[in-house]
Formats: sequence, structure tokens, C-alpha cells
Amino acid sequence: MTRRVTVVGLGPGRADWCAPAVLERLSTASDLVGYGPYLDLVRASVPGRRHRSGNRVEGDRAGLALDLAEAGGDVVVVSSGDPGVFGMASAVLEQLDLRPERWQGVEVEVLPGISAAQALASRVGAPLGHDFCVISLSDVLKPWATIERRLEAAAAADFVIALYNPRSRHRPHQLADALAVIGRHRSPTTPVVVGRQVGRPGEEVAVVELARLDPTVVDMSTVVVVGSSSTRVLDRPVGASVYTPRSPGDGRVPERARA
Amino acid sequence: MTRRVTVVGLGPGRADWCAPAVLERLSTASDLVGYGPYLDLVRASVPGRRHRSGNRVEGDRAGLALDLAEAGGDVVVVSSGDPGVFGMASAVLEQLDLRPERWQGVEVEVLPGISAAQALASRVGAPLGHDFCVISLSDVLKPWATIERRLEAAAAADFVIALYNPRSRHRPHQLADALAVIGRHRSPTTPVVVGRQVGRPGEEVAVVELARLDPTVVDMSTVVVVGSSSTRVLDRPVGASVYTPRSPGDGRVPERARA
Repeated sequence: MTRRVTVVGLGPGRADWCAPAVLERLSTASDLVGYGPYLDLVRASVPGRRHRSGNRVEGDRAGLALDLAEAGGDVVVVSSGDPGVFGMASAVLEQLDLRPERWQGVEVEVLPGISAAQALASRVGAPLGHDFCVISLSDVLKPWATIERRLEAAAAADFVIALYNPRSRHRPHQLADALAVIGRHRSPTTPVVVGRQVGRPGEEVAVVELARLDPTVVDMSTVVVVGSSSTRVLDRPVGASVYTPRSPGDGRVPERARA
Repeated sequence: MTRRVTVVGLGPGRADWCAPAVLERLSTASDLVGYGPYLDLVRASVPGRRHRSGNRVEGDRAGLALDLAEAGGDVVVVSSGDPGVFGMASAVLEQLDLRPERWQGVEVEVLPGISAAQALASRVGAPLGHDFCVISLSDVLKPWATIERRLEAAAAADFVIALYNPRSRHRPHQLADALAVIGRHRSPTTPVVVGRQVGRPGEEVAVVELARLDPTVVDMSTVVVVGSSSTRVLDRPVGASVYTPRSPGDGRVPERARA
């Protein structure tokens, strides 16, 4: 018997951004477990039995996948983006940690994917081209004080900052609060990249100045990347234009690197 | 005439981790520009003319790609991992920034890939499962003081920390110095994941405690992921075992998330 759970990332939505290793793994699974809209991204020709769940029950979903595997299944948990970045991979390992004896015989593996911030970055150039932080603004599972402390540290040390789960109906104020913390350390003209549904139908990407970002245009399917002090926007009519240089400071590369 | 430069990421090395969009783009390029070993990863059947360069001449390589495109080429710059993360995407945009008039008619685009830290994380579970920072230890283009300040901030605010370019023959002491900074804020038993040649022949992955990491085993083809205070290692015989829970603290998920 197989007894395996593989947590896979489909990437940001576009079928041609999904690793072939993931497609191969999906094609041979006995069971596919995931949030409904992610399962809908898996081709109908993939034969595994679908187990759809809601968005906020990661623990239950992980437990179901482990139970199916314990019973002999070769199970795939379907995530969007990279399942290792705020995705289902941690949720599955959390369940194993809580009840280790229950699923002793199940092997867990993870297949990575392109995460939303990378997809967004690629759409405008290379804003993540140098040191960066990735922070979830969701305080469902962590205190806002922890989030604020991390924002403060990342902003003070001049990291580029990618914000996941930036806003929901339940906590509409948080993005504005986060931007205020960052704004204590960054110029109001700092470039901010905002992407909604990146790689999916209806994709919207914008580059705005930090002081001009309207938090009300942002929702949970949005990722926000706040530039560092050296992130620059080029005046180009088409194509990539935003980047963070490999050398901090004025954005110019020292002579020795240009030789 | 096409006049386009596309900067693509092959991912960490395994062919089946490379996005189909990248393979498609490679197949139609007139010219492929890249560091020699990365060009060698492109299938021999891909017809574009190869332009190999050394590792330390990113600026020249970017300029060559832009010149080829300006002359009417449909050029692909080949990076490993994600070209937007310490990759060639920034180098190309830096060149445009330095000499905007020279390549006015060239369109630049970026196709993302799976970055080395994501591949490494997937091999052991989900150490990047919660807020994390990505820092390059190379001081070729930035002062060590900047690196140290970022390490200090990331460690103090309890981020998971992924270290790229951790060590070279020219700066053998830096990884030890970086670990010492982090060690001021983390327990000596903090899990550290060390991966060499991840996704390539000869891959080596190890999980060690922070105080026991021997910096001399690390080279430039290694990525190091230092856990946060909540990163945990499960006692499992096979498969994934290291993860950072979605809730900080003791690594246990609050009851309301398990309902």
C-alpha cells in the first residue's frame, strides 16, 4: 500500500507556470484534497477522486488527507502558489505534530511551486531583486503585535516587503496600519506593486507610490510588494520597469561590477 | 522585428521543476545568453544561438542580451532558480537604467521560476511555512554592515531566514559571522536546513542545530535556511519533518483553528 500525502503547488494559476513534476504527481493520485477553487484548476481528465473543502479549515483538510493515506491512498493535497509558503504543507505537518501516532505509516512529501509574490514581481520586472521579507498580515493565527514587530524590523532594515493576505472583510484596517508602520521608515514615493489575481483571468497589476496606495482596492486575492529605499521605476513605454538593484544605495551598480 | 529580452528561470535544476512557459519561450528564441553551466541545462534540441559567459559578469551579459535584441533578436537570458530573486532580471534592468537611450526599443519581460530556498524547503517539509526573509550574504555589491543590520533585524523579529550566496573562497568567514549575529537571538538548538545542489545530481540536504552547523561544509552552491523560534523538527522515519507553523509560539495551533 502506498500511504503517501504529497502537498503540491499549482503556482499562481496559469497552467504553464505549474511544474511538470506536479502535473505528473496529480495524474497518478488516488485522491485529490483541496479548497474547491484550487481543485477546479486541476484538469478534468485527472482521474483521482476529488475531496473539496472550504477555505478556512486547513486543519480538517490536512487530517482528511492523512486519513485517506493511512487507509492506503496515494493522496495529493492541492495548493495554489507554493504550498511551502503560507500553504498547506505546514498545515499537514501541524496535524502530524498534534497526533503523531495516528498517521505513523504515512509518508509526507512536498512539491514546490511559484509563489504569488514571484509571479507579481515578474509582471513588473524584479522588485524582489534584492534582500526581501515575506509577511502574512492575517492575524487569525498570530497576534497583530507580532506582525507589527516584524513589519517594523523589515522596514527599518530596508528590506523589500511582500505582504500576503493583506486585507479581508473581517480586518479591513490592517493594511492601512501596516503601511503606516512601513511609512515611518520609507519615503512616501517608495514604489509599491499591487497585484490581484496574478496569472488568472482578470489579473490587475499596478505600481503606485506608497503614500498614494488606497487600501480599499486591496482584497485577499491581492499581493502587495513594497519596495526598499533603492527600488526604482524606469520610464519605459512597454515591459518590465520596476527593480531593486543588487547594490543598495542610489540604485547604481559600482564600477567594479560593470567591468 | 522582435527586439525582446525575456529573462527566464529554469528553477533549481530538475527539468520537471521548470515551468512550461519557460520551455516554450526557450524553444523560439533567436539567442540564448547565460552563465555557461545554466546554458548547459537547456536541451540541445533548442535551436537558439548560445552566448556563454562567466559567472561574475552579469552586467556585460545583460548588455550583450540587450544589444542582440536591439539588433532585432528575440533573446532569452537564462538564469537558474527565479531570475527575479538575486538573478539576472535585476541585472538587465540595471543596464537599462544606466543607458536608457541605448536600448529604447527593446521590450524586457521576466518569467519566474522556483527559487533555491523553496526547493530546499520542499525537501524537508515546510520551514518557510511562515514569515521569512531572504538575504544574500555576498558583499561584492553591498557593504557587510548592511548585511549585518538586516540579519540582526530579521533575527530579532523572529523571521525564518534564508541565506543565499552564503560563503565563497574570497570571504570564508562571513557565514560564521552571520550565524553569530543570528545566534544572539535564537536558541542553539534552532533547526537549520542546509542544502547543496538541490534538484541536481549530487544533492545533499541536512538538518542540523544552529550551534552545530559547520560553516566550512557550505559553499556557493549551498542555501541555508535558519528556523524561527517556532520551527519544529518531527521525529519521523521517512519524508517531510521540518516545519514552521502558521501560528508563532509553541508551534501548536490554537483550538479555534483545529475546529
